[in-house]
Amino acid sequence: MAGKACNILVTGANRGLGLELVKQLAEASCPGRRIFACCREPSKAQNLEELAKKHPEVIHIIRLDVGDLASILESAKQVGSILGEDGLNLLVNNAGLAYRSNMKETVPKEMQDTFNTNIMGPMMMTKEFLPYLQKAAQSSAEAGMSCSKAAVINISTLLGCIEKVPQTYGFFPVLALPYRISKAGLNMLTVCNAEEFKEEGILFTLLHPGWVRTDMGGPDGEIDAPDSVSGMLRVMDTLTEKHSGAFLDYNGQPLPW
Amino acid sequence: MAGKACNILVTGANRGLGLELVKQLAEASCPGRRIFACCREPSKAQNLEELAKKHPEVIHIIRLDVGDLASILESAKQVGSILGEDGLNLLVNNAGLAYRSNMKETVPKEMQDTFNTNIMGPMMMTKEFLPYLQKAAQSSAEAGMSCSKAAVINISTLLGCIEKVPQTYGFFPVLALPYRISKAGLNMLTVCNAEEFKEEGILFTLLHPGWVRTDMGGPDGEIDAPDSVSGMLRVMDTLTEKHSGAFLDYNGQPLPW
Repeated sequence: MAGKACNILVTGANRGLGLELVKQLAEASCPGRRIFACCREPSKAQNLEELAKKHPEVIHIIRLDVGDLASILESAKQVGSILGEDGLNLLVNNAGLAYRSNMKETVPKEMQDTFNTNIMGPMMMTKEFLPYLQKAAQSSAEAGMSCSKAAVINISTLLGCIEKVPQTYGFFPVLALPYRISKAGLNMLTVCNAEEFKEEGILFTLLHPGWVRTDMGGPDGEIDAPDSVSGMLRVMDTLTEKHSGAFLDYNGQPLPW
Repeated sequence: MAGKACNILVTGANRGLGLELVKQLAEASCPGRRIFACCREPSKAQNLEELAKKHPEVIHIIRLDVGDLASILESAKQVGSILGEDGLNLLVNNAGLAYRSNMKETVPKEMQDTFNTNIMGPMMMTKEFLPYLQKAAQSSAEAGMSCSKAAVINISTLLGCIEKVPQTYGFFPVLALPYRISKAGLNMLTVCNAEEFKEEGILFTLLHPGWVRTDMGGPDGEIDAPDSVSGMLRVMDTLTEKHSGAFLDYNGQPLPW
């Protein structure tokens, strides 16, 4: 599980859920663990830098803009040179973008940015880091699938449930149409990946972190980031091949599509 | 219903389902009907041109590339000048693009093209033709919603059902990952549109045409275009406000997300 996973990469690690994930993973670290904490502008990520200073052997800060393919390729090279002969056990595609606009307000640029970051980002990250995930899967003596062997966790949202739109439409302050569309697409990507990489022993699971009081979630959220993250890490602990292609909330409850 | 809808626009009308839709709508026309048959290159759309010659008062061929916003804006102007004071009763977003690649094969350009045509296309068409749809809804004496009053029909696919991926993965010759992702996103867009425009009396429904023997569906499909289209038109006849946000197949059976 995540608590035992050796080499972990987290995108969007400068703040919110990403930063908290790196923090809890570093504090409950196991020997030899490396955490690749990725963000767009490391020079502005003061909280992450302070955290990295407390765990200098564990946390590696990597510059990465998941909306930019060249940046993904560059980060994959850099992570590869640190991993050496080791594989990557866990990729957490957490970086995400949310404009708060409905259909009438949404402009094409918002749709394009959201598509780049929330769909193309996780897709190209998974493609470019696949050799490291495959290496981890192949070199593991463990049967089945787990987050400590080789896994991709894609952070989705309840707002990405098509079935729940009639209920959630009034729930979230603004409809966030591009965000919802991108997360429905991410859900499809993840379920297809689970099928395509089943034989290679790589787990793909979607997690809904809850409505969290972060910069993205706003002040009216239902839980704080530490509770969301400790919940998600507990869920990651329990994941097996039965959960590849699943969509679970931070309490482990399955969500509909 | 579609059989009574006066002014109808169909995208991707040069071949396949789009051409057949225009054909059946023109043959069962009602007095005063205008069908705007849109395609990227009218000069190469010989079948459509021949059909239009048989129904010169009904079919208006309009140049439109739904992946290009400038082209959408231009077509909206042109359709508006033909409509005059009338509204548009039915917009059928049928134009679509399908690359047949899985995750390992998919390149960013395929994702981008598919996103442009299959998500941004229907979205920007709906946004730019909205004033004509609103005019149709407002000027109708009919209560509730219907395809003869004001409606957007988005052509989706069983391959866009996330729940069905484990079953459909082996069913379609190639996984068609970008296509699946785009159609899951289109499903979300449509359900959100149904919520956003509920008060304005505009119906939004998703239809799965079946696996049709067309250029896109290939020769192994389960039905021919005429049967798919006559089925979809029968379904459109029955749609009311209860079906706004629904996802139905060409027999009217609801599909899961």
